[in-house]
Amino acid sequence: MPVTALRGQIVYLDGNPFERDPQECLVHHPDGLVIMEAGRITAAGPYAETAPLLPAGVTPVHYPDQLIMPGMIDTHVHYPQLQMIGAYGAQLLEWLNTYTFVAEQQFADAAHAAMVAQVFLRELLRAGTTTAVVYCTVHPQSVEAFFAESARLNTRMIAGKVLMDRNAPAALLDTAQQGYDESAALIGRWHGQGRQLYCVTPRFAPTSSEAQLEAAGALLRDHPGVYLQTHLCENPAEVAWVRELFPARQSYLDVYDHAGLVGPRAVFGHAIHLHEGDFCTCHARGAALAFCPTSNLFLGSGLFRLAEAKDPRRPVRVGLGTDVGAGTSLSQLQSLNEAYKVTALAGGRLDAVRAFYLATLGGAEALYLDDRLGRVAPGYEADLIVLDPKATPLLAFRTGYCRDLTELLFTLMTMGDDRAIRATWVAGACLWDRDTGAWAMDSARRGQD
Amino acid sequence: MPVTALRGQIVYLDGNPFERDPQECLVHHPDGLVIMEAGRITAAGPYAETAPLLPAGVTPVHYPDQLIMPGMIDTHVHYPQLQMIGAYGAQLLEWLNTYTFVAEQQFADAAHAAMVAQVFLRELLRAGTTTAVVYCTVHPQSVEAFFAESARLNTRMIAGKVLMDRNAPAALLDTAQQGYDESAALIGRWHGQGRQLYCVTPRFAPTSSEAQLEAAGALLRDHPGVYLQTHLCENPAEVAWVRELFPARQSYLDVYDHAGLVGPRAVFGHAIHLHEGDFCTCHARGAALAFCPTSNLFLGSGLFRLAEAKDPRRPVRVGLGTDVGAGTSLSQLQSLNEAYKVTALAGGRLDAVRAFYLATLGGAEALYLDDRLGRVAPGYEADLIVLDPKATPLLAFRTGYCRDLTELLFTLMTMGDDRAIRATWVAGACLWDRDTGAWAMDSARRGQD
Repeated sequence: MPVTALRGQIVYLDGNPFERDPQECLVHHPDGLVIMEAGRITAAGPYAETAPLLPAGVTPVHYPDQLIMPGMIDTHVHYPQLQMIGAYGAQLLEWLNTYTFVAEQQFADAAHAAMVAQVFLRELLRAGTTTAVVYCTVHPQSVEAFFAESARLNTRMIAGKVLMDRNAPAALLDTAQQGYDESAALIGRWHGQGRQLYCVTPRFAPTSSEAQLEAAGALLRDHPGVYLQTHLCENPAEVAWVRELFPARQSYLDVYDHAGLVGPRAVFGHAIHLHEGDFCTCHARGAALAFCPTSNLFLGSGLFRLAEAKDPRRPVRVGLGTDVGAGTSLSQLQSLNEAYKVTALAGGRLDAVRAFYLATLGGAEALYLDDRLGRVAPGYEADLIVLDPKATPLLAFRTGYCRDLTELLFTLMTMGDDRAIRATWVAGACLWDRDTGAWAMDSARRGQD
Repeated sequence: MPVTALRGQIVYLDGNPFERDPQECLVHHPDGLVIMEAGRITAAGPYAETAPLLPAGVTPVHYPDQLIMPGMIDTHVHYPQLQMIGAYGAQLLEWLNTYTFVAEQQFADAAHAAMVAQVFLRELLRAGTTTAVVYCTVHPQSVEAFFAESARLNTRMIAGKVLMDRNAPAALLDTAQQGYDESAALIGRWHGQGRQLYCVTPRFAPTSSEAQLEAAGALLRDHPGVYLQTHLCENPAEVAWVRELFPARQSYLDVYDHAGLVGPRAVFGHAIHLHEGDFCTCHARGAALAFCPTSNLFLGSGLFRLAEAKDPRRPVRVGLGTDVGAGTSLSQLQSLNEAYKVTALAGGRLDAVRAFYLATLGGAEALYLDDRLGRVAPGYEADLIVLDPKATPLLAFRTGYCRDLTELLFTLMTMGDDRAIRATWVAGACLWDRDTGAWAMDSARRGQD
């Protein structure tokens, strides 16, 4: 593997700004250098100090005045819903029946799945997201297609086959046993293969019987280290339905807890209508919540209570999710724009440092990957993005008035989108270059063909 | 003036979809032709029927598969705040003191005002907005600069000098008499000059004494046909302050009504915390409200109640506003994206036809300009935009799955931004062409210099 290097402003979080002074958590090298080899960062710091470590013959790619940051992490997204982003006019349960379950049936076709997986992963990279926790469909071939494409790109992705054995169209149902077996086979093929990680994926309590939730718990016990993702307390009608379906459980979260699903590496999407006791359980178990602002607003689901989730007496791990297709953008900058607005509507504030934490290191901590993702530091995996403060004429005008780095970051999250991603580097290689519009893997693939 | 012509899909609203079946209000010519002369549309309709009217030698500019629509209308925006879009972390009153009043003081400098006016008007056109109702600052030179640039572009703009005689920094205050005199002079110079229209602009009740509000009323009486803009019921603390400042008035709107400011061509920004009686007054008087979703979310002001404003028993005229700098985008597509979300959060739905109505014909009706703006029809002013359903790779992918025009429009408002504006035509001339990145007036200006 060749050595590569980037020069520019390095910016990242080195601590949790919900627990420490945000400014103290922010690392900033105005003229920085990152050296990468074999997919990892081998050195990073001020240019003057780090340049002597450059091997002879390696010329850094220079992004003057641009920000080199860790690739962003999307903790909740459905790749099969890319073709139905922004489907009109329904709250959660109607929206699932009218749009989602129709689109997902197409993923029985492996060719369709492969086509969408390719588009989806490129759009993620274009938006600056290098790691995502991804729902596939009930079809094992949808998972195959996704991991195969991710393996080609060498991206670190976490994904799994949806488990549903009731309350969905017959073509989208498995059974508790079939779901277990297919998931176990996919874990064997993909978990830990290169950078791919498997995620056991019961869609949500209403579409899994108690037996299937128990089977999901068995998958977690039988395969230590795999992830768990599902939905939790997104919508009042959904919460009421779960109460009907599981009358013996104390809360929606308790349905999952009872099946052994609430622990480290479990990611619960939404968690809008959560009670204090459930926050305490998540804290105690080390489970994470995915805050999905564009989706929650689009479906009219409600306002996630970030300040409450981060209550210092029992802080809960929180990542940021786009939740495409109910979310309206794959850009985590846009997610942060709306995360700020959700917080403002609830009377609070989300500052830029905490915001970028949610999209980078905070996401890595939610996923127990903060030993390898979320920092621009030696030993970390070399997934980096380059942010351009002058990406559009209006951004160039506006950021000319920014007085400091924090204001610049805030402006980028308020006004930025995929255009602000000048380049995306994955495992030390530049996969996306905005200014040339070139995908590195196209030339590589042409070479292979 | 040369004859110009555009060919493509023509789409516009020909009626009020809040009062009639939305689908019946939508006009769609899948292959349409617009012919323009002397700033107006002379013919528009299906290509086959309209082409015979083309003068010899005129070749239409062809935008196959793209949508030719009326230019969008922004009924509430502050051009001097362009440099502070997305200023962090405050609700209305603190935000004004910390950021707005600081930025606005720079507009004492006519050169600064001219520079910002140029950037602002170009950004409006890039976003597809051809008419806006614009706050300048207290300085007459800020108005001069704005109208001078708009006159150069030949855009139809409505703007005025801010009136403030209390509760703001001394450098931004006028007096009731000075405000009257300066406004009257500007009206004489600009109202009805070409396409420019004047708007009497008391910022809001807290920064104008009763004497100044009376003077604003006198300006309206002494100059029939001018506009009135101000802010109304944006934020609970502001509403409480107005109650303290004007204890004799029955409501915030009544403060303005008492001064004779509530009538046709009056535009009240925000109107979030409005009572039924105030809606009735607006309806009876023919005054309009500006719904500013990105701003209301950004400042955490609250949720505008569109369905209530449009109650068929006493419908109120409503336009759409960006309210930049508290709004986060000049793109009315983005305003509609968040208008949908605000409506969803309140348990309602905003369909695509009603949404585009708000941004086009509905805005024209709010401003009593629907005899000349908001339709693609003969006699109308030739302000047109060309929308590109494949503006980004993701839009191209997503719109490939759209089944009808309504879904396409909804997708454009959910996922579109300034990139979706392929071209902007003003008074029959193409001012902005996205694909060449060229501003027509630059070559014209070079020719003049």
